[in-house]
Amino acid sequence: MYDPAQARIEAQSVKAIIEKLEGNSDPDFRVRALLIKEQRAELVKHHLWVLWTDYFKPPHFEKYPQLHTLVNEATKLAGASGTKGSADLKAADQLLAKIDEIADIFWETKKAA
Amino acid sequence: MYDPAQARIEAQSVKAIIEKLEGNSDPDFRVRALLIKEQRAELVKHHLWVLWTDYFKPPHFEKYPQLHTLVNEATKLAGASGTKGSADLKAADQLLAKIDEIADIFWETKKAA
Amino acid sequence: MYDPAQARIEAQSVKAIIEKLEGNSDPDFRVRALLIKEQRAELVKHHLWVLWTDYFKPPHFEKYPQLHTLVNEATKLAGASGTKGSADLKAADQLLAKIDEIADIFWETKKAA
Amino acid sequence: MYDPAQARIEAQSVKAIIEKLEGNSDPDFRVRALLIKEQRAELVKHHLWVLWTDYFKPPHFEKYPQLHTLVNEATKLAGASGTKGSADLKAADQLLAKIDEIADIFWETKKAA
Amino acid sequence: MYDPAQARIEAQSVKAIIEKLEGNSDPDFRVRALLIKEQRAELVKHHLWVLWTDYFKPPHFEKYPQLHTLVNEATKLAGASGTKGSADLKAADQLLAKIDEIADIFWETKKAA
Amino acid sequence: MYDPAQARIEAQSVKAIIEKLEGNSDPDFRVRALLIKEQRAELVKHHLWVLWTDYFKPPHFEKYPQLHTLVNEATKLAGASGTKGSADLKAADQLLAKIDEIADIFWETKKAA
Repeated sequence: MYDPAQARIEAQSVKAIIEKLEGNSDPDFRVRALLIKEQRAELVKHHLWVLWTDYFKPPHFEKYPQLHTLVNEATKLAGASGTKGSADLKAADQLLAKIDEIADIFWETKKAA
Repeated sequence: MYDPAQARIEAQSVKAIIEKLEGNSDPDFRVRALLIKEQRAELVKHHLWVLWTDYFKPPHFEKYPQLHTLVNEATKLAGASGTKGSADLKAADQLLAKIDEIADIFWETKKAA
Repeated sequence: MYDPAQARIEAQSVKAIIEKLEGNSDPDFRVRALLIKEQRAELVKHHLWVLWTDYFKPPHFEKYPQLHTLVNEATKLAGASGTKGSADLKAADQLLAKIDEIADIFWETKKAA
Repeated sequence: MYDPAQARIEAQSVKAIIEKLEGNSDPDFRVRALLIKEQRAELVKHHLWVLWTDYFKPPHFEKYPQLHTLVNEATKLAGASGTKGSADLKAADQLLAKIDEIADIFWETKKAA
Repeated sequence: MYDPAQARIEAQSVKAIIEKLEGNSDPDFRVRALLIKEQRAELVKHHLWVLWTDYFKPPHFEKYPQLHTLVNEATKLAGASGTKGSADLKAADQLLAKIDEIADIFWETKKAA
Repeated sequence: MYDPAQARIEAQSVKAIIEKLEGNSDPDFRVRALLIKEQRAELVKHHLWVLWTDYFKPPHFEKYPQLHTLVNEATKLAGASGTKGSADLKAADQLLAKIDEIADIFWETKKAA
């Protein structure tokens, strides 16, 4: 069962944590929020990697030549150069947008199968 | 510290387990060997994914246009369609060869940095 | 971000694996399938436990007096006495039905919030 | 082997960490302590969930009608609304008291078996 | 909170699984039992390693010159050359005996502290 | 496949993180760096423990009577009393030196085998 919803749910958690971080300067709160953000973002990456390696096949990469770059950029937005390494709400929104693009391709390939 | 040696060491473990499986029909032995092969192959995938997302940057993908496909094929050889889903020695050798290709690119980019 | 879809996606994986097990007597295939079923079923349990502890609050348990038993039965169907300990398609269907009941309550409480 | 001692040992670790946090304002020390508290509290939850799903059976829930609520409250005290989300020594003591109540029921059911 | 009970509880699980394996030739049952034995035995090793590295200090190793060998042998009995790699009830009993020896030293050092 | 390179790569990561911590007082940056240091240092410990239990055999401990102490000290340098509990560059260098000593013994035993 592959489903881009798994990455999306975790990415929404990342965004929700970033929103909470913006309004809170308590150091202990921030530690815990940053720690959970790290775990959720790692799960985003993992679910996207699984789609890229286990679900998508060579014909998909031929039909969607942007797919490699798209998944790579999405995982970078989930990773150290994105929502892991910062608490940047814009990065979280960009990540969600990329996941939606991947999901669109995913469901197109499902219909075509 | 990124180092393709991490993926390579785990891939060598995968190969060594496949070699042991070939000469052994004891069911309990096979269960344990298949279980450890699963874990080692998962680590191969993980280490390669980390290189692809966290180490390699857009200029690398421009300079090495084969890099996306190379890493994708290597992770597929580590995954369900490769050494995870089979005990095929040839798949293990192909996986090691792909990792060596990735490592060559990795060290070239390091020198260039 | 709590979402019963997470448990459902994993439970559908459990069901898909059980279907594959029914038509396949290759011992190595079965080992790998049983191993992945174990992991997926563990994730079903985990996602349900998280809902039960972290999402549902005392007023929910008052309003839905069956909720404790429902979640307990669902996790048992995911666990050793259910789809973990057997390859019983009926148990997988019962698990999915229980998750749907939990999801119905979940979305009702969301609307009420 | 089910044994409520597993949850109790981790809960005592949670309490010990909270005690250390009270006397220390070094930010780096606090990060590491909060991180370990998070991990230990997660283990408390996990061990309690396992008892609730895998050890306790319908006749136990009939005989001890408070058992669902008791385990739910204990996991909440280990979770975000309890010792995970705060460094409150009282929450740690309440958690230990709840675990002791669960352990009492556990050992009664063992004797009855 | 260090407590040799953690290693002991997992080792008792390992022993209980080996006892169940002896009376059961169903291949699917054996796969699942061997898988859980692997996980429990890994936890035995982990808990013993933590004691060896994090709890025991140089003065303990001086006072108990057999302690290094004792812990090393216990982890070997939990590992591939012991209860992980076999379903040998004698290995499980030897493992429990070693853990008891370690626990005796542990509690002596606690009293002396 | 045992290879002390696994512990060394993670220990170099620990050192690199400590170097980054020295020049950065941003609290959020420090939280994330300390968290990753914790994970990397745990992997150093794990890889060393695996060598100690699974690779090294009684004849090795006889031939290298310092081996138990050496591995114990290395894991302590990776653990709470070393690079986990501090951001001390000297501890990171001592850890790398110990790993190199273990690696020297490892490769000697490999040649002798």
